[in-house]
Amino acid sequence: MIISNLFWAVPVASVVALGFAYYFFKQMMKEDEGTDTMKKIALYVRKGAMAYLKQQYKIVSIVFVVLAIVFAVMAYFNLQNAWVPFAFLTGGFFSGLAGFFGMKTATYASARTANAAKNSLNSGLKVAFRSGAVMGLTVVGLALLDISAWYLILDHFVDNADPAHKMIFITTTMLTFGMGASTQALFARVGGGIYTKAADVGADLVGKVEAGIPEDDPRNPATIADNVGDNVGDVAGMGADLYESYAGSILATAALGASAFMLTPEMQFKAVLAPMLIASVGVVLSIIGIFLVKTKEGAKMKQLLSALGRGVNVSSLLIAISTFGILYVLQIQNWVGVSFSVIVGLVAGIIIGQATEYYTSHSYRPTQRVAESSKTGPATVIISGLGLGMISTAIPVITISLAIIFAYLSAIQFDTANFLSAQNLSLGLYGIGIAAVGMLSTLGITLATDAYGPIADNAGGNAEMSGLGKEVRQRTDALDALGNTTAATGKGFAIGSAALTALALLASYIEEIKIALVRIADAASDGLAKVGSEMLTADAIKVASFSDFMEFYNVTLMNPLVLVGVFIGAMMAFLFCGLTMNAVGRAAQSMVEEVRRQFREIKGIMEGEAEPDYARCVEISTKGAQREMLFPSILAILVPIVVGVLFGVGGVLGLLIGGLGAGFVLAIFMANSGGAWDNAKKYIEDGNLGGKGSDNHKATVVGDTVGDPFKDTSGPSLNILIKLMSMVSIVMAGLTVAFSLF
Amino acid sequence: MIISNLFWAVPVASVVALGFAYYFFKQMMKEDEGTDTMKKIALYVRKGAMAYLKQQYKIVSIVFVVLAIVFAVMAYFNLQNAWVPFAFLTGGFFSGLAGFFGMKTATYASARTANAAKNSLNSGLKVAFRSGAVMGLTVVGLALLDISAWYLILDHFVDNADPAHKMIFITTTMLTFGMGASTQALFARVGGGIYTKAADVGADLVGKVEAGIPEDDPRNPATIADNVGDNVGDVAGMGADLYESYAGSILATAALGASAFMLTPEMQFKAVLAPMLIASVGVVLSIIGIFLVKTKEGAKMKQLLSALGRGVNVSSLLIAISTFGILYVLQIQNWVGVSFSVIVGLVAGIIIGQATEYYTSHSYRPTQRVAESSKTGPATVIISGLGLGMISTAIPVITISLAIIFAYLSAIQFDTANFLSAQNLSLGLYGIGIAAVGMLSTLGITLATDAYGPIADNAGGNAEMSGLGKEVRQRTDALDALGNTTAATGKGFAIGSAALTALALLASYIEEIKIALVRIADAASDGLAKVGSEMLTADAIKVASFSDFMEFYNVTLMNPLVLVGVFIGAMMAFLFCGLTMNAVGRAAQSMVEEVRRQFREIKGIMEGEAEPDYARCVEISTKGAQREMLFPSILAILVPIVVGVLFGVGGVLGLLIGGLGAGFVLAIFMANSGGAWDNAKKYIEDGNLGGKGSDNHKATVVGDTVGDPFKDTSGPSLNILIKLMSMVSIVMAGLTVAFSLF
Repeated sequence: MIISNLFWAVPVASVVALGFAYYFFKQMMKEDEGTDTMKKIALYVRKGAMAYLKQQYKIVSIVFVVLAIVFAVMAYFNLQNAWVPFAFLTGGFFSGLAGFFGMKTATYASARTANAAKNSLNSGLKVAFRSGAVMGLTVVGLALLDISAWYLILDHFVDNADPAHKMIFITTTMLTFGMGASTQALFARVGGGIYTKAADVGADLVGKVEAGIPEDDPRNPATIADNVGDNVGDVAGMGADLYESYAGSILATAALGASAFMLTPEMQFKAVLAPMLIASVGVVLSIIGIFLVKTKEGAKMKQLLSALGRGVNVSSLLIAISTFGILYVLQIQNWVGVSFSVIVGLVAGIIIGQATEYYTSHSYRPTQRVAESSKTGPATVIISGLGLGMISTAIPVITISLAIIFAYLSAIQFDTANFLSAQNLSLGLYGIGIAAVGMLSTLGITLATDAYGPIADNAGGNAEMSGLGKEVRQRTDALDALGNTTAATGKGFAIGSAALTALALLASYIEEIKIALVRIADAASDGLAKVGSEMLTADAIKVASFSDFMEFYNVTLMNPLVLVGVFIGAMMAFLFCGLTMNAVGRAAQSMVEEVRRQFREIKGIMEGEAEPDYARCVEISTKGAQREMLFPSILAILVPIVVGVLFGVGGVLGLLIGGLGAGFVLAIFMANSGGAWDNAKKYIEDGNLGGKGSDNHKATVVGDTVGDPFKDTSGPSLNILIKLMSMVSIVMAGLTVAFSLF
Repeated sequence: MIISNLFWAVPVASVVALGFAYYFFKQMMKEDEGTDTMKKIALYVRKGAMAYLKQQYKIVSIVFVVLAIVFAVMAYFNLQNAWVPFAFLTGGFFSGLAGFFGMKTATYASARTANAAKNSLNSGLKVAFRSGAVMGLTVVGLALLDISAWYLILDHFVDNADPAHKMIFITTTMLTFGMGASTQALFARVGGGIYTKAADVGADLVGKVEAGIPEDDPRNPATIADNVGDNVGDVAGMGADLYESYAGSILATAALGASAFMLTPEMQFKAVLAPMLIASVGVVLSIIGIFLVKTKEGAKMKQLLSALGRGVNVSSLLIAISTFGILYVLQIQNWVGVSFSVIVGLVAGIIIGQATEYYTSHSYRPTQRVAESSKTGPATVIISGLGLGMISTAIPVITISLAIIFAYLSAIQFDTANFLSAQNLSLGLYGIGIAAVGMLSTLGITLATDAYGPIADNAGGNAEMSGLGKEVRQRTDALDALGNTTAATGKGFAIGSAALTALALLASYIEEIKIALVRIADAASDGLAKVGSEMLTADAIKVASFSDFMEFYNVTLMNPLVLVGVFIGAMMAFLFCGLTMNAVGRAAQSMVEEVRRQFREIKGIMEGEAEPDYARCVEISTKGAQREMLFPSILAILVPIVVGVLFGVGGVLGLLIGGLGAGFVLAIFMANSGGAWDNAKKYIEDGNLGGKGSDNHKATVVGDTVGDPFKDTSGPSLNILIKLMSMVSIVMAGLTVAFSLF
């Protein structure tokens, strides 16, 4: 009884998170927005960003409606359950909402941050960071709200005599709202990523390189579009992305728990509850951490960084301790071991974050070496940056590999003979899932440290365009640089958790295949369903383990269907990146032409006597992004379906593993190469190797431009691609089982 | 009786190939080497190349001796059989020999080609192509010699009462000479690749970009090193590489045949013989094809291309027809189906080659678009080239995927219920292996069309340095351009066959695990060996199928050890590329500094009054390549061993699949991006978009420079990496089984 009451901690944590988000938002709104020029510029950016989101949501809505209809038709033909279309739609809606709120906050905060930075670095940090916290808390609050609401609804309405299978039904159905979130996130990341980089590349190529005017110069027609881009890409895109990661890891783990403890309903409920409770406690600890972030007046860069670090570290430490408490109170089977799995996840996230920082910060040799390679021109900058990114994949991959092994081994029972027994496999996969939850449990604060970066960036843009003077700009630059470092850690968590969650989703896929087969057997006149090469009854299917399914469908590394799946999965990661890279290239091209046209045709721009046509550039970016985002995104949805029908369950599992393996490594490579190029340029701008304007600087600008789509479009989209392909496979499992050729 | 006599066709074909190679070599040597300057330059290049090879072989010999000792120790401790060290050494020796002969021929041929080009394009083609044919025929001749010699030796000396297991023993032991070839090939590709690109990038960056002098200008101190590089990288490296591919595909298929038909010794012998016979007949058909390559005097580019195409196409068509004949005569089980598998391989190779041409030739839109992106500077050239390369992976991957499925389905028996039954799995994998043999059966001529490219390139260098006049240079350039196109097709075959061979090697790995386990069981006092979580007798192990082994070791996609293996495999592909990219960067850096130093310190170079110190540049490239090649190559050998010990059989299979999936796609991406950048530059040099010297041209030179290590160092090395990791796993199987943690 007491245990089931613990569930209410989840909606309470959700309300607390949203309440604090609202409080921080109000606090921020009380700040002064500065001069009329500052207000005007902020308004331009806000309008542009909202116009973009409106356009984006229109197109995405169409996709959602089409998919919801497909699911409804599937439900009608008994290929899926009737809750799916609704769960899918709400997942998409909430994910979009998280991005929307985050962006609204960010666009209100930028001028206020710039204005506060007039007083001191510290005031600027406070406004920007608290605004970032709005985003962090909104994301976790909405996710927990969605999760608890759906749990209550399904628990109430689903009619199933057998409580164990009811729980499996509930948790796998809830995964479909994860698919809604993934779909929304993919569009947000891809669309926003194309938008922001088209504007950025366009603005830089003509402004910085050709016309020789500084970044964010108001004479550059693309400068408003560039600032809008930071909001729609880095804020709205990231919000939707991490909403999906967060909800996805909790839901996948809950589904694994439901299946691992199928035979003991009470333990099953606890296992489903555990990830939700860890996340809920994490919310409270994140808020504590957020309040810990403050510095004395006159603090220096290092102190700022340690202030942020303190917040994150205290939250992480507390959640590590609390995990033991939560799992002890729950009295979950092997609670000490499972707690260690959570901590393995947390530690792995931190190591990956540190490695990312090492490879991308110009305080360390790797990025400095990229900067030094500028002495022999842009080509060697590119070669060394690519080399760095590829080499930098080693530590994260080894870390995640060890995390998988340790999280698995911590969660299993060692008294059985075989650590890969059917029972242990379920328990171990649950351990891997809950490690992902551990990694993301402090998302409330880690996302705050991540989201405040673009706000500081925009504040800098506002300061520059409003002519606020060098000192203010230097402060916002310092905040921005700080944001780059914390963003590196954030990316580590995002990539690492994506890999672990995707692994957990593999198991959910099998679970969903099982449910679909039971549905088929129940409907069949002879009560049998075809499972691989055998015919089984519903009861036989229900008791089959993961290992049994691996055997039924011959999902071994010798099965050519699995191998083909692996090839196609690896290819998908590259193809998707190639398509988004080219999309940025094309969209940037139109931007470059427009900016050149304006410089040519509007007399007096360069003298500052005429105002450029900012709106036209915003429009070009918006249209370009909308046009270009559709094909890669739809491909990501269609390929798992096609592979399922052509190559069956083995093919799909191969696809997911191939996509995960290659995609994970490719994502790290692209993020780190991009980050290193960015900071190699900043290193030279700080006065090293000839400083700004030197040939070396120009060479690193080329690197930075190439890095833009790497780190802000293609790279981060891969995280979502990996999970979306899993989600699609899960939702379409019924189709695969019914119509697969093999 | 008649059947076993057919074996003698293999050594005969070997002798025929080597005989014709010698004949073409003599023919080439009869040509006039031209003026004294031409001879002098050719001598410089020849000396530099030989000095490099000598140095390379010295270092590689040490590695070989160390590894041979390791194998001997393993044999002593019953972890491997006693033939392994010797087979390993000969594989390395012959692979090196193929590279050596090819390079010797190429360095004699370049001045002769330039001299012949004085008369006509056609004469130039003839000399260059026949010299390429020396290389092609030497590679296939030596491979068949090595194969037949070892077969005869082992057949004579191996003492095994049971003929079926004797054949399995023979074929798997012969695979270790494949490991020798792979190791040699990896060093040759990596060392040669670093050498050639360090020299090329160094020469271009200072010569073309900074000093503004043309390619191959004798005033450039790095120009001899650059020409040496073409020989050691593109000729010697490619020779060793394809020797390994060719021998590897035949040996892997023979091993699969031995295992698939284990129960019917007569059929087993036929299945082992089939790939060797197809290859032998392919040799004769290649020679016919080589004689078909001739044009009328005054032929134009298009006619030249169609002349080459005719040779290759006729050989391919004839081998397709002959395959049916060979397999009919052998009366191999399901001979029609297996013949179709061979043809599937041939067709897949051709499609991949065509796709490569489409994406990398400037006659088509993709590369033209890369050229057009130069309008907005080098950054967009890089972005669009990377995008093109990533997108270009789709067709080859889909082609190979379909080839795997079709080759598998053609070779299996449909009268059984399950197409994945243990018996069908063996047959199907044999089908996949023999598809690779089909793809490479005409290597004699396809390699000739590939190897003549660098010869023409060097002829151009010689013509330029000897001041032979514009017309000659134009002709050698035309030959070089033709070579680029045929090289694209050649790369398609190399990559495609690597993927198929690597798949076949997976099965050989299981076979070798089996043999190692039998050895352990035989030696154990209780006659049992630990197989996964079970204890089995030698007899039980002998009759276990691939599927049984998948079950013993739980090699499914849910096993965390397998998943970790996949991650590490994918990472290895990237890490290896990153290391080789950086190696090129560093080696090029020293070259740039040396060239700058010479321009600065040796007065009168630019006026042509003083001769630059060519030898110093050759030395720098040599040292740089030797220093840089060791770490990545040794890593490739060590990682499979470490993974085997830490994560066991499942981990190794995951590693191989992950490395294959990611490595295959990454290799295509890098090869095609590199090719497209090269040809985008050539497109502009042909007078488009502003032509040579324009800003657009400069932007594409940056792309070309980045592309150099992509297409000539990292990309092609990946082919070998994939197979070497499999080979190492196979040879070290005994170690894995005896000491693995899991």
